[in-house]
Amino acid sequence: MSDADGKVTSKDTREVIMEATFRALSKHGYTDLRMRDIGEEMDLTRQVIHYHFDGKYDLMSSFLEYIIDQYEGGVEVPAGADPRTELDARIDQCLFGPEFGEFTHWDRMKVYHELYTQAQNDGQHRETFNEHYGRIRGSIVDVVEEGIERGAFRDVDAERVGQLITDVIHAARGRRISLGHEDAPREARRAVDEFILDSLYVDD
Amino acid sequence: MSDADGKVTSKDTREVIMEATFRALSKHGYTDLRMRDIGEEMDLTRQVIHYHFDGKYDLMSSFLEYIIDQYEGGVEVPAGADPRTELDARIDQCLFGPEFGEFTHWDRMKVYHELYTQAQNDGQHRETFNEHYGRIRGSIVDVVEEGIERGAFRDVDAERVGQLITDVIHAARGRRISLGHEDAPREARRAVDEFILDSLYVDD
Repeated sequence: MSDADGKVTSKDTREVIMEATFRALSKHGYTDLRMRDIGEEMDLTRQVIHYHFDGKYDLMSSFLEYIIDQYEGGVEVPAGADPRTELDARIDQCLFGPEFGEFTHWDRMKVYHELYTQAQNDGQHRETFNEHYGRIRGSIVDVVEEGIERGAFRDVDAERVGQLITDVIHAARGRRISLGHEDAPREARRAVDEFILDSLYVDD
Repeated sequence: MSDADGKVTSKDTREVIMEATFRALSKHGYTDLRMRDIGEEMDLTRQVIHYHFDGKYDLMSSFLEYIIDQYEGGVEVPAGADPRTELDARIDQCLFGPEFGEFTHWDRMKVYHELYTQAQNDGQHRETFNEHYGRIRGSIVDVVEEGIERGAFRDVDAERVGQLITDVIHAARGRRISLGHEDAPREARRAVDEFILDSLYVDD
């Protein structure tokens, strides 16, 4: 948290605020969140938040980018993996999540899905989600295209199958969060295997 | 709106309040909605709302049941349809919606998806959605089972395929609403055809 001179750097401070925002959101939800709730989750004074952010909306926009960065950065694929292995790894990490220290994949996804739905009334958040969604879908489309080129997958519309898989992942996570269907990601994984991937593979 | 004696009946009044709630929600969103916003959308006095409902939460719970009833009641299938035709009709109506007079399918779905995400913090709404979701999924599972019995579909796990289709529908609607992907329902329909239904049909 401190540099060599013992001063808290700006980067550290933002990190502290982001993690405090996380804790406050987990307790209060987005709708009821007040700036003071975030202040109560930090050791720093609340004025620091107002120094770095121009109100709740500005803070929430930064927070959305923060969790999206972590989400995308958390998806790791073994180097040199073949298309089947890479596709499996990407689907699993979007569905079941990498772990993130203090907070789990599901703590993050709760906030993520809440902000996603709010984006219907919010042009800036909608743009952030659209860019992020494009990258997640694009990473699946890329590996499907590579599989087709290598002859491992049959010649399908890669954009369409990438979108379908991304949609199933999103809906299963949403059901786990909103409806409490704990088994939704695991069941979705089985359905993707049985109805989408099996039809994609070219038999050896 | 009035019975034979010119009095407004209780059923009419609730309907008036529900439609006023709809207009107010469309303007203000769920988070920012105040009881007075609903009052401003009605010709009746605002006191009528307080007579029928015990606060905003009680009103929202009734409203959720109201839009779910309309949604489920709006899905109509031609009598005596074969399983393929019935499955197509059910998927289309969930994706593209029946029309509902003053408000469109998408006006309703905006509110529906917002309340769905809020259900993560709300046991009563979660139960309402779970029952509804069970009925929607169940209606798809039933027709898949019937198709299997009649030899029109191959012998798949009907629960799994019903859930998968329901998830794809939900995600595509959510993308249209949250991310502005106007073509999402139509693209989802094509993906369901190509990757799920085609593999389901037993070739003639």
